[in-house]
Amino acid sequence: MHKMFYPESVMIYGVSESPKNLGRYTAENLERFGFKGAVYMVGREGGKLDGREIYRHIEDIDAVPDLAVFLIPAKAIPDVLDRCGRKGIPYAVIQSAGFSEFTEEGRRIEEQLLEISRKWNIRFMGPNCIGTINLDHGLVLPFVPMYPDAMMQGPVSIISQSGGFVIDAMRILTLENIGFNKAISIGNKLNLNECDYLSYFMSDPETRMIGMYLENFTDGRRLMDLAQRTDKPVVVLKANRSPSSHQIAQFHTTALAGDDEVAGAALRQAGIHRAQTLQDMTDAFKIFKLPLIRGRKIGVLCRSGGQAVLLADAVHHHGFELAAFSDSLFDFVRKEVRAGVIRMTNPLDLGDVFDLRVYTRIIEKVLQDPDVDGLVFGHTYMHGINIPPTQELIRSAKSLSDQYGKPVVFFMIAGRKYFFTLKETSDFPIFADPEQAMKSLALSYRHYANRTAVRRDSRTAPPAPAAVRSAQTPGFMEPGEVFRMLRSSGLPVADFALAESTAAALAAAEAIGYPVALKTAAPNILHKTEAKGVILGIPGPRALRNACGEMKADVYLVQKMAGPGQEVIIGGRRDREFGPVILFGLGGVFTEVLRDVALRVCPIDRAQALDMIEETKGARILKGFRGQAAADIGALADCLVSVSKLLTARPEIANLDMNPLLVFEQNRGCLVVDAKIESV
Amino acid sequence: MHKMFYPESVMIYGVSESPKNLGRYTAENLERFGFKGAVYMVGREGGKLDGREIYRHIEDIDAVPDLAVFLIPAKAIPDVLDRCGRKGIPYAVIQSAGFSEFTEEGRRIEEQLLEISRKWNIRFMGPNCIGTINLDHGLVLPFVPMYPDAMMQGPVSIISQSGGFVIDAMRILTLENIGFNKAISIGNKLNLNECDYLSYFMSDPETRMIGMYLENFTDGRRLMDLAQRTDKPVVVLKANRSPSSHQIAQFHTTALAGDDEVAGAALRQAGIHRAQTLQDMTDAFKIFKLPLIRGRKIGVLCRSGGQAVLLADAVHHHGFELAAFSDSLFDFVRKEVRAGVIRMTNPLDLGDVFDLRVYTRIIEKVLQDPDVDGLVFGHTYMHGINIPPTQELIRSAKSLSDQYGKPVVFFMIAGRKYFFTLKETSDFPIFADPEQAMKSLALSYRHYANRTAVRRDSRTAPPAPAAVRSAQTPGFMEPGEVFRMLRSSGLPVADFALAESTAAALAAAEAIGYPVALKTAAPNILHKTEAKGVILGIPGPRALRNACGEMKADVYLVQKMAGPGQEVIIGGRRDREFGPVILFGLGGVFTEVLRDVALRVCPIDRAQALDMIEETKGARILKGFRGQAAADIGALADCLVSVSKLLTARPEIANLDMNPLLVFEQNRGCLVVDAKIESV
Repeated sequence: MHKMFYPESVMIYGVSESPKNLGRYTAENLERFGFKGAVYMVGREGGKLDGREIYRHIEDIDAVPDLAVFLIPAKAIPDVLDRCGRKGIPYAVIQSAGFSEFTEEGRRIEEQLLEISRKWNIRFMGPNCIGTINLDHGLVLPFVPMYPDAMMQGPVSIISQSGGFVIDAMRILTLENIGFNKAISIGNKLNLNECDYLSYFMSDPETRMIGMYLENFTDGRRLMDLAQRTDKPVVVLKANRSPSSHQIAQFHTTALAGDDEVAGAALRQAGIHRAQTLQDMTDAFKIFKLPLIRGRKIGVLCRSGGQAVLLADAVHHHGFELAAFSDSLFDFVRKEVRAGVIRMTNPLDLGDVFDLRVYTRIIEKVLQDPDVDGLVFGHTYMHGINIPPTQELIRSAKSLSDQYGKPVVFFMIAGRKYFFTLKETSDFPIFADPEQAMKSLALSYRHYANRTAVRRDSRTAPPAPAAVRSAQTPGFMEPGEVFRMLRSSGLPVADFALAESTAAALAAAEAIGYPVALKTAAPNILHKTEAKGVILGIPGPRALRNACGEMKADVYLVQKMAGPGQEVIIGGRRDREFGPVILFGLGGVFTEVLRDVALRVCPIDRAQALDMIEETKGARILKGFRGQAAADIGALADCLVSVSKLLTARPEIANLDMNPLLVFEQNRGCLVVDAKIESV
Repeated sequence: MHKMFYPESVMIYGVSESPKNLGRYTAENLERFGFKGAVYMVGREGGKLDGREIYRHIEDIDAVPDLAVFLIPAKAIPDVLDRCGRKGIPYAVIQSAGFSEFTEEGRRIEEQLLEISRKWNIRFMGPNCIGTINLDHGLVLPFVPMYPDAMMQGPVSIISQSGGFVIDAMRILTLENIGFNKAISIGNKLNLNECDYLSYFMSDPETRMIGMYLENFTDGRRLMDLAQRTDKPVVVLKANRSPSSHQIAQFHTTALAGDDEVAGAALRQAGIHRAQTLQDMTDAFKIFKLPLIRGRKIGVLCRSGGQAVLLADAVHHHGFELAAFSDSLFDFVRKEVRAGVIRMTNPLDLGDVFDLRVYTRIIEKVLQDPDVDGLVFGHTYMHGINIPPTQELIRSAKSLSDQYGKPVVFFMIAGRKYFFTLKETSDFPIFADPEQAMKSLALSYRHYANRTAVRRDSRTAPPAPAAVRSAQTPGFMEPGEVFRMLRSSGLPVADFALAESTAAALAAAEAIGYPVALKTAAPNILHKTEAKGVILGIPGPRALRNACGEMKADVYLVQKMAGPGQEVIIGGRRDREFGPVILFGLGGVFTEVLRDVALRVCPIDRAQALDMIEETKGARILKGFRGQAAADIGALADCLVSVSKLLTARPEIANLDMNPLLVFEQNRGCLVVDAKIESV
């Protein structure tokens, strides 16, 4: 896809001499941004623009452009795209709107475009977008006027499902002194989707961080796989979060694992950072401009007691600790400062030191300490006095941060008068306050830790077993079938038998051994207990006979009663965007009142299963709460892995609830007591 | 205190001819900011500054200044303050440091200052602060150079325990186009404290919103009482949050209600908004510049599909709903726009309308709809084209917002080039993104709702009963004493008797009626169950005799066994800053694993008690979970009110745990089964 972002020649289709023509804006943008390649303009009316010819037909151009840009009404595009294909143009950007986002007719045009793209192997962006901006190549395709002085080049590339978001992102990345390299609006992502662009940006040496604005995931699983293979930070802002009106949730998992919860779990699992706002995303890029922090020990320098207190709060709040500064640092400070007014602690309040050059030397001294993983510097300059020294300090902080490979997180509030003077001193990020500084460092540490953990997961995660669709009839599976499927998947299932009469039930119970439970084996009763379809703890034949008489089912499930254990729930469902998803939670109030559950996209390995358990608040109960014996967490993790395998191998499973699964004391394993499966 | 903020004459004590003299900076600040009153400079060396005399002694001044400002070393201050008092100066600002924050000697000087202030009835700010800035009067006392062009006057006044925070706050309030009126750094708050200043700002007509940075609360209860009496928004940033090393918590309440949790509950209860950062506080002031929102129905106008999606998410996330726009609005839009490309929905995406004047008319139309409580407008301007129209739009949005008394929350990202051009168009607040807009509207709604609720609470809250200290010995109260105290406070206590022998226990049980519980009545066994000091469900005399034999206590508590009920916990403790605090939570995992508790500062009324119960996640259990009968929540609320009264009336109670209190089915009441109290 390199040629799509670095074309040597571009054709703009839809240019006219009219002053309101959108294609003109694109041509002018290319001019203003110094695009070096050839630009061919095409428009039905022909004519001239700035003395250059507007071709009437593609065929009149005696070269093969690398990229075609479309700014004509939707219905005219299929024909032109076909002619592009015939000419051998490999890439296109279709900015025009009026497709599936608008009408049914638009949807049919999309189908034509897909067919044509397959025929000629054309790859295209859009439709319904504002196209590509690649500052590195002067390629600025949007049909609105853009100006180089409003854009700063930098390390971030943006993939966005909204054109408006691209404009906002470019503006704030410039305002915040971060800059961007490439920004694309991907529209209806009919041919190329976010994964294709992500894959390209991963390999693009100019792109060091990637931001994505998405309203849906075209291929969530592929997105995860890609992100797991890059060290570049990927930050996703997923919009369209409001829960859709789910059908009445008949499965716990459906109720507890909504689309947005699944998206959150999937992104976390892939080491993708989720931003809630564009500002969040921008803050993330700020911290990723600095070296990653590789530990939790922070040195803090600041200029007021208030900052010191707020910083100590924030360090603690974000899971870091204050490094113990060495005596040699304190000796150094004492010598430099000559005043006895500084309390030798971390945070170190330098408010009484007015020579800012001393700060540089103290910063270096702190960074040299092997016990310090990163430094936060809270600055307050004096209006009208400290401007050049503050600029010098910013430059020093940047070079020391690079030199020692540790983040120096510099924060201050720049006043109105010197706002840009100070912000533009260097491309070093300037943070706003202690909270933003520490929150960002926490993100940096998470990225550092993720890179290890995600790699481990992607290495050890079992390959997805070949999916084999069974001949299962859609709907709720029969209880006996459910238990057999679970057992054959390696799950521990309580002994059971099906019985079509009281006599058969009695015989089955005899074989299994009392006490037993009696359940109706009708597949479509979801809440058996409420429907009086469950009688537990039947001690002997007489009670069983009475129970059958009371229940009057066509088919009975006779099941060995389990001993006491901790009730947990394992669930699964097939997510539209991410595929099979597994859920874990403790039973009772933990799931039903507190929604205390952990979610993962399948497949998961045993380490991930243990992480899931650990993630829930209820884990404390399993570990032995109030002197009770600890539960067999290892066996529980094995069950999670088996369910993950089952969900991955059997694509016909739409929903699965194991509720409850009993977890016994350590080394005593687990037992599936009840389960239901819906297949499609 | 008006004269302290609007003095007609100021004396600066500690001025010299030296160019590095701090008093000079103060004098120069007064000059630059156009302070109209008389300024008297005093310094031991005398001399002249800018041609004006530096007096050697206070006594040389033939007038009585309203305010004295001190910039001399700590130990010299008592003598001078005394002479100020003799002269009749009513107010002072002591900026000098070197007091209790630094040394023991400093603490002793503070005691002298307090004595002198009592003697002459002088009220003073500080010490250890940077004093007052009152832009409304040109009174700028800090000893660092300040410049009018870096400060914007506005409706906010700031009270801060840190001088650095004052400087940051002034800078960001100016940068964000909000402005401030008065800002004070209150230092060690030796004489006047945050409550005194809050009270003054509440009455100050120039102050419309109040921000406070506090590291501790001098008198938390008074702060609450004051804040409940004003409609002005009060926003508090409480720093110093990290938990101190509590003694090992022997009471649930101590463990569950840390200092910061109590502070949070107290502020909420008083209708004070808590900010986590200075940026948070600034955002709050932005929204409070607009009319309060009085309902939950939002109209949304924006300029891109991405904004529309993000806004819809944010509206939902913050508990608002999208208003149903009227057909007449849509007709109006259709007529104005003449294009068929706009989807007639809320959010209404106006990205294809390029004449910004149309926006003003649409905004007005939306505000006229009685079903719309507030409007959010997401703007994206085009660089180099839309600047004057955008300025016009901002001005219109402001005047329409004022005219219709509904908030118009305007957000956009201003690019680097026009950043201040756009921000300074008007003093209308400009928000950054959909999330900030909706989060702020949620705050506006909370303030609107609070004003009613807090007034109700302050009206109906029972007057604190006269506190009577009993002759209780400090330490754990004896169990029998605890039960008697609870019963006499109106709490339902299970029938009990104390018995010093097995025979006495048998007689007591006979009188009470079996089944009974037997407990050791030793006061200092905290966890009776673990210590085998509790035997429950004793059915008759023989079992009781055995139980006594097993327990071998000096004194037994024989108690009527209660029937089954929902276990809850009511706790209380005396907070250093806020006085008696009451806690409620469900028993078991709810408190111990999930910390699911509600806290209030006492006294509380019944409505507040019901709110507390409602606030916990566990409330769902009490309301009848999974078909169980609902519990007697009314009786539970009565218990909370009784405990609140007890805690307020008996200042010797340091800690109280009722654990469990059993709550029975509706109309069956509650029963205290176990309780302990520690008194001081």
